[in-house]
Amino acid sequence: MAYLNENYLKLQAGYLFPEIARHVREFCDANPEGAKRLIRCGIGDVTEPLPRAAIDAMMCAVDELGKHETFHGYGPEQGYEFLRSTIAQHDYGDRKIDIADDEIFISDGSKCDCGYILDVLGDQNKIAIMDPVYPAYVDTNVMVGHTGPARKDGSYEGIVYLPCTAENNFVPEPPKEHVDLVYLCFPNNPTGAVGTREQVAHWVEYARQHEALILFDAAYEAYISDPEIPHSIFEIPGALECAVELRSFSKNGGFTGVRCGFTVMPKTVLARTESGKRLPLHPLWHRRWSTKANSVSYPVQRGAEALYSPEGGKQVRVLIDHYMGNAKILRGACEKIDLKAYGGVNAPYIWVRTPVGLTSWQMFDQMLRELNVVITPGSGFGAQGEGYFRISAFNSRENAEEVARRLQKL
Amino acid sequence: MAYLNENYLKLQAGYLFPEIARHVREFCDANPEGAKRLIRCGIGDVTEPLPRAAIDAMMCAVDELGKHETFHGYGPEQGYEFLRSTIAQHDYGDRKIDIADDEIFISDGSKCDCGYILDVLGDQNKIAIMDPVYPAYVDTNVMVGHTGPARKDGSYEGIVYLPCTAENNFVPEPPKEHVDLVYLCFPNNPTGAVGTREQVAHWVEYARQHEALILFDAAYEAYISDPEIPHSIFEIPGALECAVELRSFSKNGGFTGVRCGFTVMPKTVLARTESGKRLPLHPLWHRRWSTKANSVSYPVQRGAEALYSPEGGKQVRVLIDHYMGNAKILRGACEKIDLKAYGGVNAPYIWVRTPVGLTSWQMFDQMLRELNVVITPGSGFGAQGEGYFRISAFNSRENAEEVARRLQKL
Repeated sequence: MAYLNENYLKLQAGYLFPEIARHVREFCDANPEGAKRLIRCGIGDVTEPLPRAAIDAMMCAVDELGKHETFHGYGPEQGYEFLRSTIAQHDYGDRKIDIADDEIFISDGSKCDCGYILDVLGDQNKIAIMDPVYPAYVDTNVMVGHTGPARKDGSYEGIVYLPCTAENNFVPEPPKEHVDLVYLCFPNNPTGAVGTREQVAHWVEYARQHEALILFDAAYEAYISDPEIPHSIFEIPGALECAVELRSFSKNGGFTGVRCGFTVMPKTVLARTESGKRLPLHPLWHRRWSTKANSVSYPVQRGAEALYSPEGGKQVRVLIDHYMGNAKILRGACEKIDLKAYGGVNAPYIWVRTPVGLTSWQMFDQMLRELNVVITPGSGFGAQGEGYFRISAFNSRENAEEVARRLQKL
Repeated sequence: MAYLNENYLKLQAGYLFPEIARHVREFCDANPEGAKRLIRCGIGDVTEPLPRAAIDAMMCAVDELGKHETFHGYGPEQGYEFLRSTIAQHDYGDRKIDIADDEIFISDGSKCDCGYILDVLGDQNKIAIMDPVYPAYVDTNVMVGHTGPARKDGSYEGIVYLPCTAENNFVPEPPKEHVDLVYLCFPNNPTGAVGTREQVAHWVEYARQHEALILFDAAYEAYISDPEIPHSIFEIPGALECAVELRSFSKNGGFTGVRCGFTVMPKTVLARTESGKRLPLHPLWHRRWSTKANSVSYPVQRGAEALYSPEGGKQVRVLIDHYMGNAKILRGACEKIDLKAYGGVNAPYIWVRTPVGLTSWQMFDQMLRELNVVITPGSGFGAQGEGYFRISAFNSRENAEEVARRLQKL
């Protein structure tokens, strides 16, 4: 009989967001009235329509597929040159970061890239992950056997957790010990924290000393408002030798249902074999895409390209300003009732301390039952998230204002 | 320093189709005149525009994403219910095969699913793969460490190869030995062979005796013209306990650049742990999608759904008839010059014996240089493919006729 991958059996409960959806469904089934009033600030899904520029570009691309002269079949497995070069220019060249077009790899989203990247890495790596953190980093490592079993608090043996607490302003210092692989996410999901230039530089220095690889998730970079905060790890000298960056169009262009993101894999990033040979990761990553994928839907890539046009850029700005306006309202509402709130300034998430004595899931239940508002329990993001909850600013203004009003009744 | 996945270093040359593209590019650069006359029958990419029904549905879906009332963000990670239920009904229910909607998992293509499925399987499996075969099956297994190093003929130690030769009409018998996992592809890429009901039943019987799992790739099922040939392995009694089926919209709806396919994972398929516990694979596969993906672009899923509408179905039929008309012309042209040709009747590929004394790559070179026609060297599909080449029927009628004419000059 075929063997299954037993690492899956180590996974605790379901993946966080489907789990929350299940809780909400159960509540709605039992409370039709509450269901009608329900406002979702849980999953972090965008709510506003796509920028007009993206819609027009996708329409045009779909139209092309319907005509002989302009039909497109298989595209390049790593993504179309038109999109790779646009990204390299706008996100990097314009910031004086030297990224070649073929160092950009187009994917169907950052969540997917989190898993894909493990394809080309060895199983021997010592891995450090922020806590709390976007659960896909941990779960994908569990799935491929990079961890031991789960502990009672939901953490896994074998992972070096980097506690992100109010004390360190949710930005961890590099660990004392050696690790090979570090996951950093700035602006952070779920805490909304950002790494200053000095803090990120400190990590790059650690990575260079330890020859570690940093997986830098910058999916929320468009939400940075402080001009001093780096948008890309590659703004830090030396990062091109030790970092891979993940980006997404989900949270700037609203592509959560359209699916597009990318990874920047510099050719200068090396990794080692068991015998100590040092080889660039780029050819392995390139081969991964050639063999295991046929890139992303052509209309989707055209839609992503359009986000970089002058109109597209302006429309993205409007979206982000909208969500950040919500963030301000929601954070303000929390502070008004003396809940300690973090984030929401350079990120669309507000990270809130639960009232004394309430666990994250108790808070989730109370908000759901009493306010009919869905939030995300902080403990779902890791042991250090216990005692916090996340409010997502992805909503209509009307809903954000209504949540702010309801919060006052807590 | 981070460790890399050394299994990648076992891979021979590049992935086949990018390799061919590289050869063709070099030829074109050196021969501008030949480049102008070039006709591609190599990669098996569709050439005709998408069915109107799919275009209209995608247009409509893109339009929805541009409006508040109809915007869609994250979809269900396993695919939208509207598409899963449509597939379950049309591809299975209508053939009296009982597949539940939630046994259908929507993906960005069969090539991708070939790799994804290994996520949930153990590393201890003994794996049997047809030879010649679509290279993704072998390469994805090499990448995750399921093989030893490559041999001189390009095969890998540790895989049980199932020779597909003229003698067995390119449909292998089950092996004498025990294997845990079997890759079958009917209609076959590259040979165009199909498994009869008896032959597929024989495999199901083997799988049940050995408690093996069959990965049945039916990406080309729409090309079956013989009413006696099964379209799905689930037409065979007992297959629901031992098979997973892969399907694609690339070759019926022309979705090679749109990217959509699906896997059928029956809840009745079990796999084992090291300690002998038997568990269904379905929850692992479901979890894989929840954790590692956010499903397929919404407009793409709407486009796929439209292929099942009455108009969509007719338009797909026209496409298939077109390509199969090409197949008839191309096979006929080969036979006219006394090349022994197989396939092209229930599949869009013609599998042709090279003239005596010519290797597959020599034939590729000769066709490229003398006829300016790109074919695929059979040896690229496996050791048993040496001495053959594949002609793809995916082309315009004009090109197919021109290739037929040029073949007469060989």
